Amino acid sequence: MAKQEDVFKKVISHAKEYGFIFPSSEIYDGLSAVYDYGQNGAELKNNIKQYWWKAMVQLNENIVGIDSAILMHPTIWKASGHVDAFNDPLIDNKDSKKRFRADVLVEDYCLKIEDKENKEIEKAAKRFGESFDKAQFEATNPKILEYRAKREAILSRLAKSLENEDLADVKALIEELEIADPDTGSKNWTEVRQFNLMFGTKLGASADSAMDLYLRPETAQGIFVNFLNVQKTSRHRLPFGIAQIGKAFRNEIVARQFIFRMREFEQMEMQFFVAPGTELEFYEQWKTKRLNWHLALGLGNDNYRFHDHEKLAHYANAAADIEFNFPFGFKELEGIHSRTDFDLKAHEKHSGRKLQFFDPERNENYVPYVVETSVGLDRLFLSIFSTCLKDEVLEDGSERTVLSLPPALAPVKAAILPLMKRDGLAEYAENIFNDLKYDFNLFYEEKDAIGKRYRRQDAIGTPYCITIDHDSLIDHTVTIRDRDTMQQERVPVSELRRIIDEKTNFRNLLSKI
Amino acid sequence: MAKQEDVFKKVISHAKEYGFIFPSSEIYDGLSAVYDYGQNGAELKNNIKQYWWKAMVQLNENIVGIDSAILMHPTIWKASGHVDAFNDPLIDNKDSKKRFRADVLVEDYCLKIEDKENKEIEKAAKRFGESFDKAQFEATNPKILEYRAKREAILSRLAKSLENEDLADVKALIEELEIADPDTGSKNWTEVRQFNLMFGTKLGASADSAMDLYLRPETAQGIFVNFLNVQKTSRHRLPFGIAQIGKAFRNEIVARQFIFRMREFEQMEMQFFVAPGTELEFYEQWKTKRLNWHLALGLGNDNYRFHDHEKLAHYANAAADIEFNFPFGFKELEGIHSRTDFDLKAHEKHSGRKLQFFDPERNENYVPYVVETSVGLDRLFLSIFSTCLKDEVLEDGSERTVLSLPPALAPVKAAILPLMKRDGLAEYAENIFNDLKYDFNLFYEEKDAIGKRYRRQDAIGTPYCITIDHDSLIDHTVTIRDRDTMQQERVPVSELRRIIDEKTNFRNLLSKI
Repeated sequence: MAKQEDVFKKVISHAKEYGFIFPSSEIYDGLSAVYDYGQNGAELKNNIKQYWWKAMVQLNENIVGIDSAILMHPTIWKASGHVDAFNDPLIDNKDSKKRFRADVLVEDYCLKIEDKENKEIEKAAKRFGESFDKAQFEATNPKILEYRAKREAILSRLAKSLENEDLADVKALIEELEIADPDTGSKNWTEVRQFNLMFGTKLGASADSAMDLYLRPETAQGIFVNFLNVQKTSRHRLPFGIAQIGKAFRNEIVARQFIFRMREFEQMEMQFFVAPGTELEFYEQWKTKRLNWHLALGLGNDNYRFHDHEKLAHYANAAADIEFNFPFGFKELEGIHSRTDFDLKAHEKHSGRKLQFFDPERNENYVPYVVETSVGLDRLFLSIFSTCLKDEVLEDGSERTVLSLPPALAPVKAAILPLMKRDGLAEYAENIFNDLKYDFNLFYEEKDAIGKRYRRQDAIGTPYCITIDHDSLIDHTVTIRDRDTMQQERVPVSELRRIIDEKTNFRNLLSKI
Repeated sequence: MAKQEDVFKKVISHAKEYGFIFPSSEIYDGLSAVYDYGQNGAELKNNIKQYWWKAMVQLNENIVGIDSAILMHPTIWKASGHVDAFNDPLIDNKDSKKRFRADVLVEDYCLKIEDKENKEIEKAAKRFGESFDKAQFEATNPKILEYRAKREAILSRLAKSLENEDLADVKALIEELEIADPDTGSKNWTEVRQFNLMFGTKLGASADSAMDLYLRPETAQGIFVNFLNVQKTSRHRLPFGIAQIGKAFRNEIVARQFIFRMREFEQMEMQFFVAPGTELEFYEQWKTKRLNWHLALGLGNDNYRFHDHEKLAHYANAAADIEFNFPFGFKELEGIHSRTDFDLKAHEKHSGRKLQFFDPERNENYVPYVVETSVGLDRLFLSIFSTCLKDEVLEDGSERTVLSLPPALAPVKAAILPLMKRDGLAEYAENIFNDLKYDFNLFYEEKDAIGKRYRRQDAIGTPYCITIDHDSLIDHTVTIRDRDTMQQERVPVSELRRIIDEKTNFRNLLSKI
């Protein structure tokens, strides 16, 4: 556990130190759960977007991409259910005036019980030494069994109360467990109430016609309301998909874990429209396709697993998460949902427009069913960044930090490094830079010892370092150093474009899907 | 005038009919001044972004790009002046309860006078026939002279009142001119008041700590507050630049002209940080560089002009617009501003942090000066789309509509069109599609007569149509048709990748800058 925390701390500090992610508004002491992407983060994020867009839109003849606005007509969020049901249960402490998520208070209480269990196990492990059988101890020790039973009873009651919207029972649970404000110890609580997670704003200045708007909490609805426009103007028949990358906003009360859960975040969603009755077949296909897309990144197949939803959302008839092994454990990375015709039907009802497709094979009109794939761009960024960040001990005993990104995603494809500025080396290097810059994002640096410069490029994941020395001026060859093997090779300048392209082209990723 | 309006109508309807731009939330009767980009619009917009990003970030060794959040600490907008001064003067009609921009009411009044002038001129032109000397008539006709004098007096008084924030005089002007509510004719007006154009929202749910936030009205401040983080982690010395593409929001009261002025829009901004005293030299450089970037698009050099600001904003010591000849006349496309050290100094003051650079050559610390280039992505889209949309009469007398986009910006690079589905032509075409799809965004279609399919590709700007016929199966050649010349050529399938790449690669644009 401690080790995982250290890994995560290192991830966060490396992200800042090397210009990947800065806390938003940092000079003003930050804005909670909002982050900015720095010069290397912006490039990495753009490359991840391109990998997704190319894989979804470019490789699939029957998928197109759109870019709908963040501001939408407010009735859309009524139709989607967000106005009525996109809530967190909140409770206020009357003494401290602090607000908490009621469910999180109960969950934190259960985490404390779990801590006690772990301490019992540690104690026993120490006592019994090598002969300790953890599984047996857990299955038989009365204290452990009591703790577990208590935890399970609490969590199951919480789940049931939330499901039934019985907020009074959530309050009762908090009181029975004598849960206190963690900062002040006060147990003087208000009732539990639902708090909507959408950010609100107002459109227009006219006193009588100002309109209450929301910042969209998901990009999917922008696809649903455009379904007919896109289908008709693209002339696609079912099955076909609409993809979109864009910002979404959720006023999270408890936003945690760096860029994993932010108040402003980015989604990459695709809605695949299919004939009713065929949705589960496509659902299975997209589960496989999306997993393969992740696996092609080469972060290790064991870092991914499916989590099939047992309890389904009101709009779904099948749903699964692709979970990733983050520094803080396995968590949702992407969701694949068979959303039925819930959304399109709801928009038919609230807008009064028909949202149907005439199927020439079936010779009938129907509201399409939808299979959705939805991945959080920022947590995808985190999955890649945290897994690729490695401390290595080299053969000579020295250490290096290397960010072993898939080359197509690397912010900088090659660093152009004249060994020194003088003797015309800088000019020669600049000519190489100016020749290659039309095709690749490059980095140019002429200061510091070459070893230091290599290390800095390793730390931002640059696949190639190209060093220009005095021989280069004579024989027009340079040294090219591979980030991962650290092997150096002498190659003609005229070969550089081909070498860099072969390693860093998106084809490498796309052909593996 | 009428012709320009027709052109603009055609642009808007073509943009919708061919999947470039849809009114946002259209099935809910739309959301005023907000638009969505459809399947072809999203691709065109992404390509424009790439052209800008490559030109700014990739080609310039000393410019890096970032991606800062839309939500920022509210004090940032106090420091920037937006809380106090980002206002429009509004006036309400007490009878109709409608709200108007006071300055626009006055300007519209002047436009009506201009209409009268134009009618006088038209009348005279008819009367005098071919011997009519328009310039002389305008310079001597007493009616025309009177109208012009009146207009100029009104507009100059309005400008002066707004500059002095003398809103009472704006109200007085409206009353003196007897301006009425255009819908109802009522002249029963309230006072004129300032209305802030920022969208507000609230962060967090805690009763005592909910924070009033704004949706950013410009992306520039996201660069200023990150200046030091980027400079230190990128190790760039001055002069160096930070570029950014992102959404901004303005609660415009009168939002007009399609995507030219939207409430939600996208900016592409670059802030170039320089030593004090050198800013005007870089300002001139960037004026030239940015104009050349636009000219490389090949939309016609006469469609651009500089407009140097005579009256400067409080933060600037030099400023110019690049104006474009839109379907509704020359309007601002991009701004180049020498912003001095105003913003960084303001953030120093409000944040209490030093935002300075140690200049090793001057051996001193200073707050950098800033030269900004700021282009509206959506109006850039409109400038390209409207200029490239052409109705052509062909040699045989028939007509076609073609969108002659620069090939690198075209949504689809090539359409793969089997002459018919049967006889294995579709399979052969699919193989070509699957071979080329890793490198290009393609379109595949096997329905309809080939001529119809060509026309549809012309209408969305596809540079190449590739037709597969029975001979293709035998000799592995296909017909490739050029969008602009409509010439058809027989080429080996193995040559397609090279041919398409040569025409559509970004190098074609970038090397012209």
